[in-house]
Amino acid sequence: MNDHPAVSLSFRSDNVAPVAPEIMRALEAANHGLAASYGDDEYSALLNRKFSDLFETEVTVFPVSTGTAANALSLATCARPYGAIYCHEDAHINTSEGGATEAFSGGAKLIALAGAHDKLEPATLAAALRRADRGVTNRSQPDAVSIAQASELGTVYALEEIAAIGAIARDAGIRFHMDGARLANALAALGCSASEMTWRRGVDILSFGATKNGAMGTDAIVVFDRELVEPLSYRLRRAGQTWSKMRFAAAQLIAYVENGLFLRLASRANELASRLGRELAAIPDVRLIAPVEANLAFVAMPEPAIEALAAAGVRFARRSSGVIRLVTRFDGTPAEVDQFVALVRRVMG
Amino acid sequence: MNDHPAVSLSFRSDNVAPVAPEIMRALEAANHGLAASYGDDEYSALLNRKFSDLFETEVTVFPVSTGTAANALSLATCARPYGAIYCHEDAHINTSEGGATEAFSGGAKLIALAGAHDKLEPATLAAALRRADRGVTNRSQPDAVSIAQASELGTVYALEEIAAIGAIARDAGIRFHMDGARLANALAALGCSASEMTWRRGVDILSFGATKNGAMGTDAIVVFDRELVEPLSYRLRRAGQTWSKMRFAAAQLIAYVENGLFLRLASRANELASRLGRELAAIPDVRLIAPVEANLAFVAMPEPAIEALAAAGVRFARRSSGVIRLVTRFDGTPAEVDQFVALVRRVMG
Amino acid sequence: MNDHPAVSLSFRSDNVAPVAPEIMRALEAANHGLAASYGDDEYSALLNRKFSDLFETEVTVFPVSTGTAANALSLATCARPYGAIYCHEDAHINTSEGGATEAFSGGAKLIALAGAHDKLEPATLAAALRRADRGVTNRSQPDAVSIAQASELGTVYALEEIAAIGAIARDAGIRFHMDGARLANALAALGCSASEMTWRRGVDILSFGATKNGAMGTDAIVVFDRELVEPLSYRLRRAGQTWSKMRFAAAQLIAYVENGLFLRLASRANELASRLGRELAAIPDVRLIAPVEANLAFVAMPEPAIEALAAAGVRFARRSSGVIRLVTRFDGTPAEVDQFVALVRRVMG
Amino acid sequence: MNDHPAVSLSFRSDNVAPVAPEIMRALEAANHGLAASYGDDEYSALLNRKFSDLFETEVTVFPVSTGTAANALSLATCARPYGAIYCHEDAHINTSEGGATEAFSGGAKLIALAGAHDKLEPATLAAALRRADRGVTNRSQPDAVSIAQASELGTVYALEEIAAIGAIARDAGIRFHMDGARLANALAALGCSASEMTWRRGVDILSFGATKNGAMGTDAIVVFDRELVEPLSYRLRRAGQTWSKMRFAAAQLIAYVENGLFLRLASRANELASRLGRELAAIPDVRLIAPVEANLAFVAMPEPAIEALAAAGVRFARRSSGVIRLVTRFDGTPAEVDQFVALVRRVMG
Repeated sequence: MNDHPAVSLSFRSDNVAPVAPEIMRALEAANHGLAASYGDDEYSALLNRKFSDLFETEVTVFPVSTGTAANALSLATCARPYGAIYCHEDAHINTSEGGATEAFSGGAKLIALAGAHDKLEPATLAAALRRADRGVTNRSQPDAVSIAQASELGTVYALEEIAAIGAIARDAGIRFHMDGARLANALAALGCSASEMTWRRGVDILSFGATKNGAMGTDAIVVFDRELVEPLSYRLRRAGQTWSKMRFAAAQLIAYVENGLFLRLASRANELASRLGRELAAIPDVRLIAPVEANLAFVAMPEPAIEALAAAGVRFARRSSGVIRLVTRFDGTPAEVDQFVALVRRVMG
Repeated sequence: MNDHPAVSLSFRSDNVAPVAPEIMRALEAANHGLAASYGDDEYSALLNRKFSDLFETEVTVFPVSTGTAANALSLATCARPYGAIYCHEDAHINTSEGGATEAFSGGAKLIALAGAHDKLEPATLAAALRRADRGVTNRSQPDAVSIAQASELGTVYALEEIAAIGAIARDAGIRFHMDGARLANALAALGCSASEMTWRRGVDILSFGATKNGAMGTDAIVVFDRELVEPLSYRLRRAGQTWSKMRFAAAQLIAYVENGLFLRLASRANELASRLGRELAAIPDVRLIAPVEANLAFVAMPEPAIEALAAAGVRFARRSSGVIRLVTRFDGTPAEVDQFVALVRRVMG
Repeated sequence: MNDHPAVSLSFRSDNVAPVAPEIMRALEAANHGLAASYGDDEYSALLNRKFSDLFETEVTVFPVSTGTAANALSLATCARPYGAIYCHEDAHINTSEGGATEAFSGGAKLIALAGAHDKLEPATLAAALRRADRGVTNRSQPDAVSIAQASELGTVYALEEIAAIGAIARDAGIRFHMDGARLANALAALGCSASEMTWRRGVDILSFGATKNGAMGTDAIVVFDRELVEPLSYRLRRAGQTWSKMRFAAAQLIAYVENGLFLRLASRANELASRLGRELAAIPDVRLIAPVEANLAFVAMPEPAIEALAAAGVRFARRSSGVIRLVTRFDGTPAEVDQFVALVRRVMG
Repeated sequence: MNDHPAVSLSFRSDNVAPVAPEIMRALEAANHGLAASYGDDEYSALLNRKFSDLFETEVTVFPVSTGTAANALSLATCARPYGAIYCHEDAHINTSEGGATEAFSGGAKLIALAGAHDKLEPATLAAALRRADRGVTNRSQPDAVSIAQASELGTVYALEEIAAIGAIARDAGIRFHMDGARLANALAALGCSASEMTWRRGVDILSFGATKNGAMGTDAIVVFDRELVEPLSYRLRRAGQTWSKMRFAAAQLIAYVENGLFLRLASRANELASRLGRELAAIPDVRLIAPVEANLAFVAMPEPAIEALAAAGVRFARRSSGVIRLVTRFDGTPAEVDQFVALVRRVMG
């Protein structure tokens, strides 16, 4: 019951991958005896300790079923209904969550800003905040900024870029949210610690992705700003995002970070993307439209070549005309990459 | 890492149970190869077929992470923001979901009605609908009725009761939602088919519980009224209730109903509750406050006895003064029941 | 263009009345020259001073177009989306505003409580608060209590009743809202000062009715708790409740309270209702179903008599079978009351 | 009590104006006898007839207290919570209503599009609709387009431009909303009939402005698409936008259109703006940043000159650096315009 023939190549999404074996074993191990429900269990307590260790500060972790839930409920907790949330115009929260943030917040406004390679630029944010008309009752009032690390385009913010945004947010008195659907890929790319990339740069609340990188069906919200914990706990419950058998979400997330598993998985995917990008860029008339820094490559090539790749059974997503998105996964192999590159060479030939 | 000592007895909740072995094996079996995401996979297609077979009609199944999500999103799809939803005053949607239905619907109103043993009585519903002031713009307008089968008190609606409510709903032009957090227990109690207890009695949309009865962390919405499918699919996605790796939710639900597993699991729990109720009722000064029809027993006894049971390490929930709730589980044993009954006899002695 | 024939009697509503002449003159007087918009004008400044004098404390006044807006936006500012608001089950906010409070608050829950003569009883409120399960994330959390002074049934809370509710609210850490759609009638009935009936008894925010008692089309929110001013100002603007030509709303409200006009108007209406109640109660088989304390009388009489009154062209509202509501107005006359009483005598004869 | 000294000049806003004498007289005339409440009165019936005559089709008119209410409630009725609403990026609904549309709709998304002179270009709309990913559940789904006639910049859509947008909307199966806060100014500018500029070009629902052009405090929603009438009537009532003494809103609107008053008032304002624009454009180093087509002129001039004008006591709004907004009113005079132009000449001298 596998919807991809064994011989085919897929760079469609990191969501098509199975569960990492370590995480599946953790689920099995957690499946003994009784455990208190709704997060009052020992796994959930351990989860908070493990993540507090990982982030080198006391954090509260709320497992949720999807990244959309993580983003929208984080931001709804940061923003008043009449608040404004600043983000890149191509941010997932702005384009691909069906208005989830607007809905959960009661009508907060996303202020969508331009920026090269899907990254919000500090100067652009600062300028937008200067135009915000604070205290003017018919204007949505600044409450939060959200960036995606890694971005939708697979680019990664440098630590100083995050720090610059964090400083602007702090000066403006607004909260700083990081959409880390691919956090592990960004961490692996930067080679820094989890704390260096988040709260030490001003991040208040984090959507911590796991499903794209080996978990079964749980992401998490990691809360650094303790004022957000209580209101978020109510919002999650009424959003139907508080599992009764929470131990199984906690067990996945514990295994995910244990012994650096998440970084190893992400590194594998990143390396495949890097190989892919390097090889494709060397082919005449094939062009990367953004630097390959995580596990995504956006590639421009002639439409007939794209058609030929699709006809050959390769799975990938199209973007605008002449551009495709390629996603590498923790369970991918260099051989697949090489096979694909050879195919591209052939169709471009 | 088990928060209940092996020697202790727990009748705290059906949510403290582990995952049924058959379902865990199905998760393992699904963990091979790639699968399309967000429900476009073969498991999800099979899920729809399996449930269509089970319900003897074509249904659409949407796995969700919790019963609160199932209830609130079902009802938000049935009700206009200015709509009214009729339910029992003790319904979970009214007392224990933090206003989820009001929030997801944009302010629809729950009209809470009294009724013996937590069951909504057809005559009470009919009378409430007659008072509804249709067309009067400052009154919330009738849109749906919701009943819980089994109820919060562990009672079960007879088929003719469901039919009577269904007929009233049809005549009133409102939708009929069933909260089946413990649907399997009700089915096992009535010994009828899934179709007889739902759409054949007028149910339009069903919260199909699985987690309390052996699944890991997925319930589902089963849609009979096809008009609800499209709007619900958008509402689920923006609520963060559409898993990317949907195959694992589908696999749980397929295994849950395969070869009647869910009914066997529920029957075990029901039998334990029945044994518990019968034995406790025979103890002087111990009284059941409602008939034991599913896997719940609500028991009145003197406060000192309740204290003594708690002191002995037994886990259970308190209700109003002098009343406790006992929940039996698919993984419980007659020996545990007998051990508990003996303990009650001792503390009452 | 008068939809009531000159000869007919109307006790239908206080909303059918015209504008008091003093208020119409104030509108004319305000209609000269330019004035800043959205409340930055001198009339609005004067309004705040006049009301601060009236209430003997510094208040902020926000004119709004209706009582529903006043109630729902006041309560939405007091309650978190996952909050609970306690009120009488027959409160206007619970029965006659189409779910406005639920909608504007993002899903806060009205906890409807029983109480004689449409008045919330302190002991009932206290008991409900004890059952509130604070800190339990699936329960709506106590945030506010709302009472209507006068009530929907035309009864009036004594000062000590208001004080008792205020004390409970303060101890519970929740806000106290008063729906004063007929505040002037209650003040006239009690003969106390505006401060004695409101903030000195714990009221934090007040829906101040004016339209039913002589204004053209403006009520107001009077804010005693200064923390509510800023969030309310944003909520009002985005609700479309901030008039650009605010001077005309302010002018109405200034005239309404100037030299005690509002109390004189309300006293007239109250006296008519009192006369009506006294005379009707003396007729055999006619019965008041609540004490007549403001400008409303609810009267039980045989259905054939009700039919005969309606057939005679008298305007009134029906309630449950055999009960009618009679409303007196500032522009009514004793002669009308006497004419109606004579008619009732005749149809009862 | 006039907040502008008699000698000063104000081009601050059309909202600083008084009520047109004809409208004030209509209010006085309506203030006799009793009238049914909440729109069941004869004035409201007449209002519907008058506007049906004006628009040469049967319309339903809902008076509301502000343009924000008109826009947000119109759009909330057109869009599903997961819907998308297309508009110009500088539209009032997008920049100056505090997220009202997002809030009332339950989270619909405004898709903000660029366009010269604050006008939405048909080709831009068509391209955006092509990118809309219909049927993809994580994308907000096209439901409506909204244009402002006249625009925020005082420009006016030609009839063929409106028709082009209407045709695109019809083909896309989405509703077409017109924000007519300054509808009369646009009508006066085009010299066409009300029907030619609205439903005959595809407009389904119209925010009909009156307050900026001589009314006291009422705008209206004019509904052409009859399917929208019923849901809108409920939404308005629960939004607190249904006046009890509706006759006074209806009376204003009747007088406003009677004998073409609204067009005469708007023509006066337009002529003043035209004179202002023509004269200012002739001054060296003063530049209009958009054609002056209604009653607004946006003027670029050196900052020191702007400072000097402000220091001289002239009232106006600043936009971006070096740009001011000048608004003319129905009650303005050519002498004021000339006085201002002379002043500009002096400060530019």
